[in-house]
Amino acid sequence: MDDYTFTLDFKVRDYECDLQGVVNNANYPHYLEHARHEFLLEKGLDFAALTEEGIHLVVTRMEIDYKHPLVSGDRFCVGLNIRRLTKLRFQFQEDIYRLPEETLIIKGLVTGTALNQRRRPAFPSQLEILF
Amino acid sequence: MDDYTFTLDFKVRDYECDLQGVVNNANYPHYLEHARHEFLLEKGLDFAALTEEGIHLVVTRMEIDYKHPLVSGDRFCVGLNIRRLTKLRFQFQEDIYRLPEETLIIKGLVTGTALNQRRRPAFPSQLEILF
Amino acid sequence: MDDYTFTLDFKVRDYECDLQGVVNNANYPHYLEHARHEFLLEKGLDFAALTEEGIHLVVTRMEIDYKHPLVSGDRFCVGLNIRRLTKLRFQFQEDIYRLPEETLIIKGLVTGTALNQRRRPAFPSQLEILF
Amino acid sequence: MDDYTFTLDFKVRDYECDLQGVVNNANYPHYLEHARHEFLLEKGLDFAALTEEGIHLVVTRMEIDYKHPLVSGDRFCVGLNIRRLTKLRFQFQEDIYRLPEETLIIKGLVTGTALNQRRRPAFPSQLEILF
Repeated sequence: MDDYTFTLDFKVRDYECDLQGVVNNANYPHYLEHARHEFLLEKGLDFAALTEEGIHLVVTRMEIDYKHPLVSGDRFCVGLNIRRLTKLRFQFQEDIYRLPEETLIIKGLVTGTALNQRRRPAFPSQLEILF
Repeated sequence: MDDYTFTLDFKVRDYECDLQGVVNNANYPHYLEHARHEFLLEKGLDFAALTEEGIHLVVTRMEIDYKHPLVSGDRFCVGLNIRRLTKLRFQFQEDIYRLPEETLIIKGLVTGTALNQRRRPAFPSQLEILF
Repeated sequence: MDDYTFTLDFKVRDYECDLQGVVNNANYPHYLEHARHEFLLEKGLDFAALTEEGIHLVVTRMEIDYKHPLVSGDRFCVGLNIRRLTKLRFQFQEDIYRLPEETLIIKGLVTGTALNQRRRPAFPSQLEILF
Repeated sequence: MDDYTFTLDFKVRDYECDLQGVVNNANYPHYLEHARHEFLLEKGLDFAALTEEGIHLVVTRMEIDYKHPLVSGDRFCVGLNIRRLTKLRFQFQEDIYRLPEETLIIKGLVTGTALNQRRRPAFPSQLEILF
């Protein structure tokens, strides 16, 4: 996991598994969101507090390649990198690996931006710390 | 369903089913919440708008008896009654029946109250219309 | 919605909204999944029954462009098209529009395949009806 | 937390919060389920493996008293006790405390039983280890 700026460990919870007996594909965006918010916290930025201040961090595009499923009992790790795409947009590379053997489970790219209270693009200076 | 003030029809969505192949028990509180909010709307009260005004409708107690499971493909109905318990508290009886044969699936009792912005109990007059 | 083979109407449920007051981005994959499974049913294919038979329909890639958020009370429609990409893979175009004015909310592309019980790619003949 | 047989620590994930800015009441049953399944694992029982063997552990009744809400960023602990009610039924006492100060958040009672593949009550001997 040395290729990532930030990593976060998880364990599958059984309620995340669906009738196929694997983690439902819609739970991966949840894992990716939680990893992003913990990354923000590590940088001193609190997603909920930003929202209260009127800074809305939003996802504009998400791409996920599903390689292998996670199942009940699996431990896994989200690895995260961030890069700036444009003045207003940034992109997270977020990949999930099953632990301990680090099998690649999904590859994700999540593009985001910041909106102000009128939902207009706005990139407040406190976000500069992310890059 | 004649014994209920308000009823709302649903269909199971497959992502609500867990690895036992039945609707996960934590999805029933979601169904019950959605039925309550639609009941409020029918009465002219909008849960999200109330929240914006600083009126927080909250659940203080929930009891659910699980009789039979719902599975993929099932259609079902939530039947709802409301009664006032005290000046500040009210209770929803919310039962779920599988359709079309009306098999009882769960019996629920959800007690709630209203809090103001400082999270103090407060019962605004616009809620009187519910009873 | 004439450009779509299949459409399905929904209404936002308040529990799908997050602390930003909009539908959480991870709920859109749920809506898209439910629309796909209802489309399958219309074609005479039952996702849960296929799973029991050992035919696992799985998502291998998902791309979503988020254009506008849905909020509490919104009605919306998923429009769906399907096309075959290769012998083993197929792709759903799934777009969401807010109703009644048909504002584009998200554009989605979901690629899938079928796996047998040993999770090997296998395309059973009963799926031919989809194309 | 000395009054509990088993405890499990969690942190709120932002996607669990709803438009009131607090953890949605339907997420508590998820937390309680995950704590029960981790308790089972500690006892050498794997919920998913039991399901595959045809032993369905199911909830027959749930009571939750909501005392205080959890919000974004909160750490909390589920404390769990189990007792046998009858030959076929058992009950979990599951309470949630916010950390580090151990404010009581919810009090829960979850009654369960075991069903065989025909969904008939059956209490296999391997569950005796729980008591």
